[in-house]
Amino acid sequence: MAQNIYDKPEFFSGYSQLERSLHGLEGAAEWPAIRAILPDMKDKRVVDLGCGFGWFCRWARRRGAAHVLGLDLSENMIARARTDTDDPAVEYAIADLEALELPEGAFDFAYSSLAFHYVEDFDRLARTVHRALRPAARFVFTIEHPIYMAPTHPGWVTAADGRRTWPVDGYSIEGPRVTDWLAKGVVKHHRTIGTTLNTLIANGFTIHHVEEWSPSAEQLADHPEWAEERDRPMFLLVSAGR
Amino acid sequence: MAQNIYDKPEFFSGYSQLERSLHGLEGAAEWPAIRAILPDMKDKRVVDLGCGFGWFCRWARRRGAAHVLGLDLSENMIARARTDTDDPAVEYAIADLEALELPEGAFDFAYSSLAFHYVEDFDRLARTVHRALRPAARFVFTIEHPIYMAPTHPGWVTAADGRRTWPVDGYSIEGPRVTDWLAKGVVKHHRTIGTTLNTLIANGFTIHHVEEWSPSAEQLADHPEWAEERDRPMFLLVSAGR
Repeated sequence: MAQNIYDKPEFFSGYSQLERSLHGLEGAAEWPAIRAILPDMKDKRVVDLGCGFGWFCRWARRRGAAHVLGLDLSENMIARARTDTDDPAVEYAIADLEALELPEGAFDFAYSSLAFHYVEDFDRLARTVHRALRPAARFVFTIEHPIYMAPTHPGWVTAADGRRTWPVDGYSIEGPRVTDWLAKGVVKHHRTIGTTLNTLIANGFTIHHVEEWSPSAEQLADHPEWAEERDRPMFLLVSAGR
Repeated sequence: MAQNIYDKPEFFSGYSQLERSLHGLEGAAEWPAIRAILPDMKDKRVVDLGCGFGWFCRWARRRGAAHVLGLDLSENMIARARTDTDDPAVEYAIADLEALELPEGAFDFAYSSLAFHYVEDFDRLARTVHRALRPAARFVFTIEHPIYMAPTHPGWVTAADGRRTWPVDGYSIEGPRVTDWLAKGVVKHHRTIGTTLNTLIANGFTIHHVEEWSPSAEQLADHPEWAEERDRPMFLLVSAGR
């Protein structure tokens, strides 16, 4: 079973104060880039893997999705998602992505935001999602970028000449990374970009788009403090086809 | 026109002393990984973009390729390739990948090793290669990994605790990188992995395999000094289908 960090009180409390928790999709810097690669939601049966508070589920439904299923390991998240949703076509359930079971061909679109880096067995997950999608369906997800995840000490270092640098080590050594973020001992699973893409391909997906997110010029004008995101990517966005 | 660094005497002299120049394919650490993703060469019409001394061209021919065309910008390289080749089915020509012209549907396989990072306009190159391949043909190439290329100062930094780290900055800022390697002022063109893959996809290729090369356990046993390659990837290997 995946680590249920979101139900640790100090983590949940901290997470609830993030911009993306307070303001939903518009509070996430990478949302405009995700949105640009999403298919039309009209009449789609959608599954959101790691749905959190359900912001995306409700967005998909407002955009015309026929039905949306949001899954998350966290009881806290699912409880809050249910409270915030008043639509019988948007359902939530508790599920562990590490042991996920989905009905065959039940969905037209699968989505996931910043959840898969908590999953150890991505091969099993990719196989499960592929089987759950109808032919020609799409699969869009984001994870923390491997450059962000790999280092022993993932934090900025000031070089001798004053530049801000990101000290990469252990990039090719895949496996758990334990960091303190909102709570102590958060376990993430580092994989190279190559492994993530090859796992999708091996399970029958076609790669449509790969984006190592960085802020647009417009975003930088509004948020000069995001400039560091251009020095090392924080998010990886992937769009694949069944 | 791409910078013709290989015809600078000090560069050519230094390059000629590298393991991969003295010992050919077997002298390149990443060759076993490349070989694992190559298609069968039997009866293939092959083009090698940036063929250098022609080691791969001759290998492909020995493996049964019907015809091999090796292209390189460097007169020195092409002259040496011709000297080392005694086979009318292996031909060489001087060509600038920045302004490459190839006949339509003329090849069954396109190959390139560590040349495309010298090319500014990868979109034009991908379009040209796609057009030159017959349907269902394969395209395998390697480039310097963007993590290796991006930094202002691409060299190891020892962290406070003694770890070896690679100081990434400017990862999302694509464009020229000028370094001193064998000669002063070598110009390479940094692109993210996302851009490289999306450019291939936009030009009609299907991504088959993406590998951020690191040494195998067997290689590490023979070459303990290669351990640093696991801390940050030096090469990116891509296999795509027409």
